[in-house]
Amino acid sequence: MVTINGERLLGDLRVLRAMGATGTGVVRPAFSETDMAARRWLMERYEQAGLRAQIDGVGNVLGRSANPGRALLIGSHSDTQPTGGWLDGALGVIYGLEVVRALAEDPSTRYLAVDAISWQDEESRFYGCMGSRSFCGEFPPSAEAGLRDKDGVALADALEQAGLSGTPRLAAADHDYLGFLEAHIEQGPHLEEDGRRIGIVESIVGLGGMVFTFTGQQNHAGTTMMAGRKDAATALYALASLINEAFPKVAGPRSVWTMGRAVLSPGAPSIVPGHGELELQFRDVDPDVLDRFEAIAHELVDVINSRGGATVETMPSRARISAAHMDAGFRRHLSEAAERHAPGQWAAMPSGAFHDAGVVCTVMPCAMVFIPSIGGISHDFAEDSHDDDIVLGCQVLASGAAAILEGAGA
Amino acid sequence: MVTINGERLLGDLRVLRAMGATGTGVVRPAFSETDMAARRWLMERYEQAGLRAQIDGVGNVLGRSANPGRALLIGSHSDTQPTGGWLDGALGVIYGLEVVRALAEDPSTRYLAVDAISWQDEESRFYGCMGSRSFCGEFPPSAEAGLRDKDGVALADALEQAGLSGTPRLAAADHDYLGFLEAHIEQGPHLEEDGRRIGIVESIVGLGGMVFTFTGQQNHAGTTMMAGRKDAATALYALASLINEAFPKVAGPRSVWTMGRAVLSPGAPSIVPGHGELELQFRDVDPDVLDRFEAIAHELVDVINSRGGATVETMPSRARISAAHMDAGFRRHLSEAAERHAPGQWAAMPSGAFHDAGVVCTVMPCAMVFIPSIGGISHDFAEDSHDDDIVLGCQVLASGAAAILEGAGA
Repeated sequence: MVTINGERLLGDLRVLRAMGATGTGVVRPAFSETDMAARRWLMERYEQAGLRAQIDGVGNVLGRSANPGRALLIGSHSDTQPTGGWLDGALGVIYGLEVVRALAEDPSTRYLAVDAISWQDEESRFYGCMGSRSFCGEFPPSAEAGLRDKDGVALADALEQAGLSGTPRLAAADHDYLGFLEAHIEQGPHLEEDGRRIGIVESIVGLGGMVFTFTGQQNHAGTTMMAGRKDAATALYALASLINEAFPKVAGPRSVWTMGRAVLSPGAPSIVPGHGELELQFRDVDPDVLDRFEAIAHELVDVINSRGGATVETMPSRARISAAHMDAGFRRHLSEAAERHAPGQWAAMPSGAFHDAGVVCTVMPCAMVFIPSIGGISHDFAEDSHDDDIVLGCQVLASGAAAILEGAGA
Repeated sequence: MVTINGERLLGDLRVLRAMGATGTGVVRPAFSETDMAARRWLMERYEQAGLRAQIDGVGNVLGRSANPGRALLIGSHSDTQPTGGWLDGALGVIYGLEVVRALAEDPSTRYLAVDAISWQDEESRFYGCMGSRSFCGEFPPSAEAGLRDKDGVALADALEQAGLSGTPRLAAADHDYLGFLEAHIEQGPHLEEDGRRIGIVESIVGLGGMVFTFTGQQNHAGTTMMAGRKDAATALYALASLINEAFPKVAGPRSVWTMGRAVLSPGAPSIVPGHGELELQFRDVDPDVLDRFEAIAHELVDVINSRGGATVETMPSRARISAAHMDAGFRRHLSEAAERHAPGQWAAMPSGAFHDAGVVCTVMPCAMVFIPSIGGISHDFAEDSHDDDIVLGCQVLASGAAAILEGAGA
């Protein structure tokens, strides 16, 4: 039975952590010098593990197995948020490397074909999940043209700087993968709260969003009577409250919705604001629930517009992302591995956060393994997980991968 | 009958406008070089008008009449907002100067005693209505100590720079004024909308305010279930909406309330915000209405706190400002002057905006004259009034001032 090397795993995670380390966190956004240095280091590690390493034209790093047969692809992303945690996607990237090494060291599994990957720009410096989208044919020139990061840097310049201009890009169609496995920290509190050490993801929830723009009339807060006002703030507060009152009536048990961004202009206590923006985001596994949320939001916008104050316009804030269902066979193998290594201490669960596996599952079967996030914290310098959970997660992934490959008759 | 010189009035307003002119607007904040230059220019003009001019230790410029008897004080403030309009307080300052000149030119009124004044820092660079407050004994060392503007400049340094350190300060107690008259642009749309050219202010509305601070728990918007959230945004929207629903039930006909400042932190669409701030401001002539608003706001804070999400704390955003009632006798004289010069085209009205007269009326009788603001616009480069309204307003003020002084047996 395949056994991973926990010290080697933790050692490599710490080497990667040092690249961009800032206090307890990591600053390693896609295409930054530290990100590219990390990718070059990863290619060396892939080669040392017996894989043939390559970097593609959007920065994806792939290590290909020399073993015959259909390979299983394992990995995640090594880019981070602007102020990110040290694990996040890096965990799953090093898991992929360690699974390859562990399988190769065991005579009973060394014939199994596993390719390891680190996707690029999952964290949306230029385009969320750019690497996996490019791999899956979801990054057309129309999406790429004119892309800039929040500081105005053009993607084309970042690619040039990284030495990737003209480098060929990986495409799922050129491979014949058995499927893709991704491990990740949970980024939520559920495993910890429930005393579980492993989560086997059933589905990644779908996501929709809208941006509401309020147009009123800026005025002096002392001299403008209530009847004459077109107050962007009043309309914004009312719409947000109506949404918060209406959504629970049609929500599923794990629906979430958030209006974490609201901006009033000019934003002074003595001025009736003439402009406002409110962003709504909602997530659920069930597309019917997302449809109902969207329909209700439109109805409530009409309610606000009928009141005769500031007016509201609605724009979709991003294309709807459908819920992604993880492969049942893969989940069974991973669940059996979880039960073997952590009996009674694992759970099947949805992923409330989005992941590269949510993109890749459009072209091949996928599954995901979660480990607990301490305090549910992620995308923050304080993000952390317990070492023994980190080691356990990789062991479950390795055993599950072996079982999947063996079950596929590889 | 006293007659003002419209061309001279407009000419001086344009000279003053040139000091700090920026496009159609004016940038002349208190104690800036342009503000001090304007004050020195004003002292010259006062002297040319036969007044004895002085600048006091906070920058107030006073021109004293040599005529015997109790004087009437007339003026406003010549400092501007950081990006201000050209009239605002400058209008009332030059009105004071012109009334003095017009009275002196008419044999029937040249014996009347009028002092002219430009108060300092009405626009709150350091302390709102600092000049008039200082004059009225409302600027104690405890308020002055450590005062800085929004760029961190200390008042003490600004006074030093302006050459005012150690200069004596005017005090109402050292004078025996009959009262104070202030003219100002309306800063609202009512006169224009109603086709009136003159407003005689009955009272300056009172003002109260509260700052609500929301404390929740910042979290991932995908992985944090609704039941486990402490969402600062949800609490903020709910409180603001409850206030907007409850206040109309106890409001007076001219009550206004505004929540033009709301800030969520971190303010990202994918993050449940852990912190929020909301500022409420309310104004009415009737202190009972202000009391009711404040009581209701506290009740609604309790409602939000009982819901178990993010918690709300309440702080008064500024000391309550009581409504200021203009002197009935002064108002009668000014109303008669308005009816004489603009029959049927004037109106008695409250002031929704605050003014130096709202301070000075605590120590002597006061009254105010408004002229229409084009489009109701003020505190903006686009602020403007029609020339004939500017001239009319000064004529009404001059006639009214003469009548007040004559009526007082001066």
